[in-house]
Amino acid sequence: MGKSKHITWHASEVTKSERQQRNQHKSAVIWFTGLSGSGKSTISVALEKALFAQQVHTYRLDGDNVRHGLNQNLGFSPEDRKENIRRIGEVSKLMADAGLVTVTAFISPYKADRDAVRHLLDEADFIEVYTACSLTECEVRDPKGLYQKVRSGEIAEFTGVNAPYEAPTEPEIILDTETLTVEASVSKILDYLQKHQYINTAQV
Amino acid sequence: MGKSKHITWHASEVTKSERQQRNQHKSAVIWFTGLSGSGKSTISVALEKALFAQQVHTYRLDGDNVRHGLNQNLGFSPEDRKENIRRIGEVSKLMADAGLVTVTAFISPYKADRDAVRHLLDEADFIEVYTACSLTECEVRDPKGLYQKVRSGEIAEFTGVNAPYEAPTEPEIILDTETLTVEASVSKILDYLQKHQYINTAQV
Repeated sequence: MGKSKHITWHASEVTKSERQQRNQHKSAVIWFTGLSGSGKSTISVALEKALFAQQVHTYRLDGDNVRHGLNQNLGFSPEDRKENIRRIGEVSKLMADAGLVTVTAFISPYKADRDAVRHLLDEADFIEVYTACSLTECEVRDPKGLYQKVRSGEIAEFTGVNAPYEAPTEPEIILDTETLTVEASVSKILDYLQKHQYINTAQV
Repeated sequence: MGKSKHITWHASEVTKSERQQRNQHKSAVIWFTGLSGSGKSTISVALEKALFAQQVHTYRLDGDNVRHGLNQNLGFSPEDRKENIRRIGEVSKLMADAGLVTVTAFISPYKADRDAVRHLLDEADFIEVYTACSLTECEVRDPKGLYQKVRSGEIAEFTGVNAPYEAPTEPEIILDTETLTVEASVSKILDYLQKHQYINTAQV
């Protein structure tokens, strides 16, 4: 239980179940993982918009609102990457408890770190979405100009080039972003959420 | 902007304003501060329940879901206390951005740390609630048996006894918990939220 043995608490009188009932959808953490340039950000933005349009209470965690806020004191060492993902996992857990469908868009290169988040969350809350795309294609896209900076030496270490990316072995959803459009990718996720009754099919 | 200069992002296409409109109430962070035993937990639990009953999308952060989760790697040194409050502030900001009324119940003894959270949040999102109660009365109540452990030497440092508590100078709400009941305390906060149009008076 960590360092705080003298912490006790009062249990909340509003339960996760009551929040889900009120919201008319289940909580979930839709966890994107994939190389830089594989489509995580673009698809997650479109997904959040589509979920909101369907009356789902949703929120997206990304580099903007996390790396520059909660995790601004973390760098990119393996240890810091692990702590980065751990904190995002803990925040996702709080948001799931609050009844939200949280969408996260981080490279999250290490399988062990993603699995730790999966086990941290309540069962079935974790939906791993792998944006599968070859390094070659990601480098061609290079939407942020990062691969170019790696090749020119401006960035020393980069996932997929000279730092490991461990692809998920059993993700809930695989999006082949070399062939699927953004719209088709969003549809595939929405279909999954409806089929598994996270969101109310009748509302769609 | 912290350590991550190569982080860029896609802006969310769902705004805080749209979330607030959907929820029919404003976002807010209702930040309790006060000595151990002053009533933070009890009142915050009752407040969350009352807000939920009024169709407000609300969530409570407390020692349970934060100290044992996100902040489990923090202790009670001044530096760790500061980081504890910083992270809670950052999570509150994310939840405010997600459209929630977040209720936090932590001693948060240092004025500078609370003020940092106030300035981190969007203007008017921070509502500081001071549960004012004398140390003598808190020691008599001692709901968690902590003051006894301090007096017996089992706990070395404790806020209000031999570690500082800096009372707020201009909190939005002061609750004199030596005289106010829990119900009256909750009412006072709800009145404030209605008067300042955080929640819709018509819904009450």
